[in-house]
Amino acid sequence: MDGKAVVYCEGSFGNDYGKTAHGLVRHTERYEVVAVIDSTLAGQDSGDVLDDRANGIPVVASLTDLSDDEIDYFVIGMATDGGTLPPDARAAVRAAIQRGLNVDSGLHEFLSDDDEIASAARNAGVSIRDVRKPRPRSQLNFFSGDILDVKALRIAVLGTDCALGKRTTATLLVQGLRAAGLKTELVGTGQTSWLQGVRYGFMLDSTVNDFVGGELEHAIVSADRNESPDIIVIEGQACLTHPAGSGGAEILSSGRPQGVILQHAPGRKTYSGYDDFPLAPVEQHIATMENLFGTRVIGVGINPDGLPVTSIPEVIADHERRLRIPCCNPLRDGVAKLIDAVRRL
Amino acid sequence: MDGKAVVYCEGSFGNDYGKTAHGLVRHTERYEVVAVIDSTLAGQDSGDVLDDRANGIPVVASLTDLSDDEIDYFVIGMATDGGTLPPDARAAVRAAIQRGLNVDSGLHEFLSDDDEIASAARNAGVSIRDVRKPRPRSQLNFFSGDILDVKALRIAVLGTDCALGKRTTATLLVQGLRAAGLKTELVGTGQTSWLQGVRYGFMLDSTVNDFVGGELEHAIVSADRNESPDIIVIEGQACLTHPAGSGGAEILSSGRPQGVILQHAPGRKTYSGYDDFPLAPVEQHIATMENLFGTRVIGVGINPDGLPVTSIPEVIADHERRLRIPCCNPLRDGVAKLIDAVRRL
Repeated sequence: MDGKAVVYCEGSFGNDYGKTAHGLVRHTERYEVVAVIDSTLAGQDSGDVLDDRANGIPVVASLTDLSDDEIDYFVIGMATDGGTLPPDARAAVRAAIQRGLNVDSGLHEFLSDDDEIASAARNAGVSIRDVRKPRPRSQLNFFSGDILDVKALRIAVLGTDCALGKRTTATLLVQGLRAAGLKTELVGTGQTSWLQGVRYGFMLDSTVNDFVGGELEHAIVSADRNESPDIIVIEGQACLTHPAGSGGAEILSSGRPQGVILQHAPGRKTYSGYDDFPLAPVEQHIATMENLFGTRVIGVGINPDGLPVTSIPEVIADHERRLRIPCCNPLRDGVAKLIDAVRRL
Repeated sequence: MDGKAVVYCEGSFGNDYGKTAHGLVRHTERYEVVAVIDSTLAGQDSGDVLDDRANGIPVVASLTDLSDDEIDYFVIGMATDGGTLPPDARAAVRAAIQRGLNVDSGLHEFLSDDDEIASAARNAGVSIRDVRKPRPRSQLNFFSGDILDVKALRIAVLGTDCALGKRTTATLLVQGLRAAGLKTELVGTGQTSWLQGVRYGFMLDSTVNDFVGGELEHAIVSADRNESPDIIVIEGQACLTHPAGSGGAEILSSGRPQGVILQHAPGRKTYSGYDDFPLAPVEQHIATMENLFGTRVIGVGINPDGLPVTSIPEVIADHERRLRIPCCNPLRDGVAKLIDAVRRL
């Protein structure tokens, strides 16, 4: 545990751009999260906003609303297209530094390379951690083929779109498998997983493309050798077909999972963030994963985004009939069906 | 034209690791190639070695065998796994710098960041160009959706494996389409294309993953706006299913080609460089491209690697019957069938 943290998510806690913050208020082993900053939702409980279940972590309008003097970290909890730092966020980072908070950021724009912010942090004696900052190329791993020696069963959680709950389902799956007595390790592939304290992983979307397969293999092989788990759950990234770029192919081709849990949002018509680009059918994702990549899709996690609440059970039942594999809404129903599917593999 | 060049390819001109050199002796608008260095094939004509057709570019054992005093560039013509500089190559680069040659490299290991090489170059007054060195993140383009405004027809040349002729087929296709009176622009995605003098493109495998889609889109949109071509040919990279990492998905999801030419080597059983990993069937690549990504595979370029010479015509005919699209060996038969397929689209 690194310390107490406030998560900055101004204007985004109520939408998909706040997904890093959503992950952190649901689960992290790295921090004790004491508050979320988003003036548009100030005064509410962050769990109520997110999952209709209070979690005791308040949403506040700004850092000045927090009287707790023992906060250690100011964590940027927004994903932005291109990973840049919006002007409002810059002012908030400056204020946090002046208050003596360390800053953790998963943006592509590195705060430690920003002269103004870096010198303010030096003067205040606080740290800046740019968790997406890549290691030098000389330290990156190229694919070796050692994935063939991995003994653990590998399950990847992939998606038919971005921002529909891959990481959340992966986290629930790990917790459920452990509760069922299976030794399970999570391989994280994004900045939120790092902020949540995952022990094995890398930043897929911040890695030079030629090393993505090798870095993924290295994380999986390390988890297998060091922990001897029964099961390794691989957090997916992006989606094979998302127009802004894909992150699923390497997970299939280099990570070589024996099974896939596919997250899908039947209520969406277009890709997250790109209204002019219609989604590919879920059936075609499954066909490609099974026929081209040689894995098995063993279950579907349904994200109810955009569906009328009363229709959700019927939509799930309909998908189960059509796809002939277990389907459930992991956040509402739990992942018992998916655990069973993994055990049958 | 930048000047006269010698292409260094020690030990690799006869195999797939020499593919950058192969591209340069077949075609480049950036250099006049005067020789290839590979002591294992010294004394032969590089065209004879590569295509059984002399091209007048000799293979020599080392730089000291070249009397021409007017060589300007020493170009590293080998791809290595991980893109590192082998020890022999380091000595050759030192010798080239001492002789006053500028060095161009497409390796991942940047020569300009190597203290020994960089200081030798400074002392000798020669340049080092690391063509894979990425621009700062602040200059990279994120996907915008502008691809939907592109007027040119987009044709991508993809493959069922690495190192089977995607770039060569793309180059022949561009030449053939131009000869047929169609204004055609090539969008390059690799270091060899840059070394060949392509005007639009980026280094796909050397780009941070999150920006691959946006950089590709930007190159296509720029070519379309600046040149108003009838057709844009997109050079593919890697292969959707190659275990060392993939490069095909972004070309389909972000480049959104209306048609695909698929390179395939029916004589291979396993992926290039990875003998323990069996190839996915060509039919499944086609099914995924058409059903998941919504494009059409309009022709197949057959690479005869590993096939008995006498069997090649029957293998091509067999693929044409099975796949029901035009198939040909572009290097031997030319690309007339593929040009026709593009015109019918």
